[in-house]
Amino acid sequence: MKTTIGGYLIQRLQEHGVAHVFGVPGDFVLTFMHQIEDSPLRLITTCDEQGAGFAADAYARLNGLGVVAVTYGVGGLKIANTTGQAYAEKSPVVVISGAPSMDERRRHPLIHHKVRSYDTQFRVFQQLTAAATVLDDADSAASEIDRVLAVARHNSLPVYIELPRDMVDCQIDRPASPAVSAPESDPQTLAAAVDEAVAWINRAQRPVIVFGVELHRFGLQDVVMRFIEESGIPATVTLLDKGAIPERHDGFLGVYAGALGREDVREYVEGSDCLIMLGTLLTDMNLGSYTARLDPARCINATRDRLAVGLHIFERVQLEDFVAGLVAPGVLPRHVDDHPRAPIREDARVTAGTGDDPITIARLFDRLEPFLTDDMVVLADPGDALFASIDLPVQGARAFLAPAFYASLGFAVPAAIGAQCACPDSRPLVLVGDGSFQMTGVELSTCAKYGLDPLVIVLNNGGYTTERLILDGGFNDIQPWDLSKLPALLGAGRSHVVNTVGDLETALEAASVRDGQFFLIEVRLDKSDVSPALVRLGERLQKAATAGMESTSVASAARPPGGRTTG
Amino acid sequence: MKTTIGGYLIQRLQEHGVAHVFGVPGDFVLTFMHQIEDSPLRLITTCDEQGAGFAADAYARLNGLGVVAVTYGVGGLKIANTTGQAYAEKSPVVVISGAPSMDERRRHPLIHHKVRSYDTQFRVFQQLTAAATVLDDADSAASEIDRVLAVARHNSLPVYIELPRDMVDCQIDRPASPAVSAPESDPQTLAAAVDEAVAWINRAQRPVIVFGVELHRFGLQDVVMRFIEESGIPATVTLLDKGAIPERHDGFLGVYAGALGREDVREYVEGSDCLIMLGTLLTDMNLGSYTARLDPARCINATRDRLAVGLHIFERVQLEDFVAGLVAPGVLPRHVDDHPRAPIREDARVTAGTGDDPITIARLFDRLEPFLTDDMVVLADPGDALFASIDLPVQGARAFLAPAFYASLGFAVPAAIGAQCACPDSRPLVLVGDGSFQMTGVELSTCAKYGLDPLVIVLNNGGYTTERLILDGGFNDIQPWDLSKLPALLGAGRSHVVNTVGDLETALEAASVRDGQFFLIEVRLDKSDVSPALVRLGERLQKAATAGMESTSVASAARPPGGRTTG
Repeated sequence: MKTTIGGYLIQRLQEHGVAHVFGVPGDFVLTFMHQIEDSPLRLITTCDEQGAGFAADAYARLNGLGVVAVTYGVGGLKIANTTGQAYAEKSPVVVISGAPSMDERRRHPLIHHKVRSYDTQFRVFQQLTAAATVLDDADSAASEIDRVLAVARHNSLPVYIELPRDMVDCQIDRPASPAVSAPESDPQTLAAAVDEAVAWINRAQRPVIVFGVELHRFGLQDVVMRFIEESGIPATVTLLDKGAIPERHDGFLGVYAGALGREDVREYVEGSDCLIMLGTLLTDMNLGSYTARLDPARCINATRDRLAVGLHIFERVQLEDFVAGLVAPGVLPRHVDDHPRAPIREDARVTAGTGDDPITIARLFDRLEPFLTDDMVVLADPGDALFASIDLPVQGARAFLAPAFYASLGFAVPAAIGAQCACPDSRPLVLVGDGSFQMTGVELSTCAKYGLDPLVIVLNNGGYTTERLILDGGFNDIQPWDLSKLPALLGAGRSHVVNTVGDLETALEAASVRDGQFFLIEVRLDKSDVSPALVRLGERLQKAATAGMESTSVASAARPPGGRTTG
Repeated sequence: MKTTIGGYLIQRLQEHGVAHVFGVPGDFVLTFMHQIEDSPLRLITTCDEQGAGFAADAYARLNGLGVVAVTYGVGGLKIANTTGQAYAEKSPVVVISGAPSMDERRRHPLIHHKVRSYDTQFRVFQQLTAAATVLDDADSAASEIDRVLAVARHNSLPVYIELPRDMVDCQIDRPASPAVSAPESDPQTLAAAVDEAVAWINRAQRPVIVFGVELHRFGLQDVVMRFIEESGIPATVTLLDKGAIPERHDGFLGVYAGALGREDVREYVEGSDCLIMLGTLLTDMNLGSYTARLDPARCINATRDRLAVGLHIFERVQLEDFVAGLVAPGVLPRHVDDHPRAPIREDARVTAGTGDDPITIARLFDRLEPFLTDDMVVLADPGDALFASIDLPVQGARAFLAPAFYASLGFAVPAAIGAQCACPDSRPLVLVGDGSFQMTGVELSTCAKYGLDPLVIVLNNGGYTTERLILDGGFNDIQPWDLSKLPALLGAGRSHVVNTVGDLETALEAASVRDGQFFLIEVRLDKSDVSPALVRLGERLQKAATAGMESTSVASAARPPGGRTTG
């Protein structure tokens, strides 16, 4: 049966569960965008390519595959950063870039949007993706599409497809069915690894499961949740994985993030004699700027790329097979009751202050917990919006998304577009600093355009507060914006300004009535107000320093995580 | 004498005439930013890195060198596109990226803001710059700084300097003086090339000088202007070079842009028997989407990279030496009086309509000509803002800047920041489409922060109008913004909405009173209104098609230039 190259790409994306494509039009991609508009896929165009890139990243995290379509050069290179983040945090984003036609490449040395040579953009994306292809040959186009999409799915990493504009409508034979071969575990090695792990877990005094981001990416979260419940082994998550487990679940310890996290969680986790890390990325951000102290000899560490049981490395064992082995009968059930749990507040409205009390980050987050509902997806931008979230038990919310490792500011607002497209019956709750908001906040225009209704809470403290803690200077100040004027500019949305606890109450009440538009809450904070998590980090670093901790390590950690951050 | 690596870099930038650095803070670059704040350099921080990248590009075009300083990964990769544009259009931008310390690289495999490996960003920028270095060695740091800055200056191309944060304050010896060796011409070849060119010019019936962008970049514009005046040979410019010659100069023909330009200019230039192209980039955009018809056998084509006199190629001849040879006595003066000139309007207020006449692009640009003053720098964003400018004789204005080849939307507003820093006594006049404005228009916040006062004219026609001419679809629509609300959001600035010719008069009158803030004019245009230049292009393509022009060429050209464009 005949199809076109563009048509086959669209068909395969649908078969992978994609229903939305994010992008910005440009002449080299118009033909393909036209095909998309004629297909069941929905095209969402954003203000700037950066917004489309972040939206596709969030969509990919929730949906298993996300797509961003842009034009050549001026479009593609604008999403180098969002693609870099997708790579660092294992988000399967398919970058589709329109490109000059094969005929143009042959005839014209200098064409608009071209940087250096026709393959400059391809070479850039080779650095930022797990697989890259140029569909310049009709005979191989279908197999190339299948190859790179398989890499995206199997490795949960971004891939790059360059589509010359004269190839979009090029007729090809539709392959019978795509040939995809997933790598398989070696049965003997798998059995040995599982046996060793199970034996160790059963003799351990205080095993702890660390629930990692890859479990989500590879659809293993349900099976591991069952393992937690049947084995009775308590679990923690790192920041990247926050929200993967309902945080009021009886087996949940709290977020483990070195000194950034709660002290009782840190002590319990670091005191474990068998840390079962499943799909966890060990990064500086995840681990509270290296304040975490984890001994590899006491860890079972299983990821897509590598399996270590203590100091034994096992090769050719797939993550899903190892997880299946652990979950099979073998691990003896136990009853643990003395582990830490998220503190219960009798009435958050009390701990959060009342009436004319000035609003603080701590009060805001105390109040947010009971406000979360089952249909919410929480999106936190790097900076204190993210750090403060460590202490926000995400119980009711459907998911929690944050670029907790790569930490690119400006993610959360455009990510809300992707999140609500991926989960149409959800409502995104965005937590974002004022500095970040100046980067991508105008993408609320895209929400207005498509009738999306995120609730956006801007933590306004007059600049890059987390950075002030590292090294302050005029460069950490930003121009103050009057966010109450944003709905009038964008032609949609509502906004509230919050100075006191009472204002917050009023704003949340108004926000809970949904009207199909974004709702913006500007929370005016003191310039020096920081979250309890950041306070903890500072205290512990100070303690470590006076205890004579290795100086380079302190110096490194004394730069709080999050890179350039707001709060 | 002792200095630090960061201190030496700052000193050398100053010696190259740099007075401003554009950037966004982030933890890996904070130490260097602190050094900048303590130096005579002025640090200008923008809302997003993209804005800083475009500002540095404009600054580089006007100043001879521009600098953008960002953090690692989340900062660096955000300016991949602006750096790509600088490369394509020969703008000498120095990208300085903070980076993880050498100690962090050794000890930690996963650090925040890292994509894949520690050299991922370096590899990306190798594709986008003419020279790239990581200052990871104290012994070579000073010579590496001198090497890459020399490349930036000599080739007028962007370069990349990665500065690990623990190297910034590292003590080094200050070199006596930087060793810079510029390539030299071979005297015999140079003499032969000049002789051949001069002889040809003297026997030519109708020579024409094409004034190219490289003349500006290499400081040769004054000497070539004198050549135009002394030889009496008329001159044209391509779109990239517009504004290089006062457009009411007696020797100026008008902008040559194939069918996009005026027909009399096209005929005169294409009828020349000796086209003296000096520093000209031959691109599709420059040449009206390949509607230009230039025969290499009738061209002297001298650029930094290559010299061709007709079909003879001369190697090892430097552009500046060849230009000096042409300017030396040898070319016989002539008197040409019958060449085209920019049409003179007796009273632009009449041709531009009156009172309640609805505003159109043609009327707007007719009215703008007499509005231009000597202190203005005109910045045009790609799309019809740029095409319409072909017919705007830039006479009084000090300069005209547009990304006329690479054509990245969103350039003009942040470029105005760079332009006004480079020329503090100038006033930027920005011409930008509504689609572009949604990408980077909020950088007017940066103008508000630093008291810059560009006049920004937004051509609002409800989306990507130039793209509608290629292929229309819902993707070319954008969310309507009420731009009159922008000053209230950003806390500074004034705005006017223009529906009629009378409104424009009022707005321009108000705008001519400067008060240290930006002035925004939203010009509401009909969705289908396009400039005379775009109309010409369409007509000529149609004529060519019916005359049986080579079909692939028409198909290619029928996609109007400008890539993704607004109007």
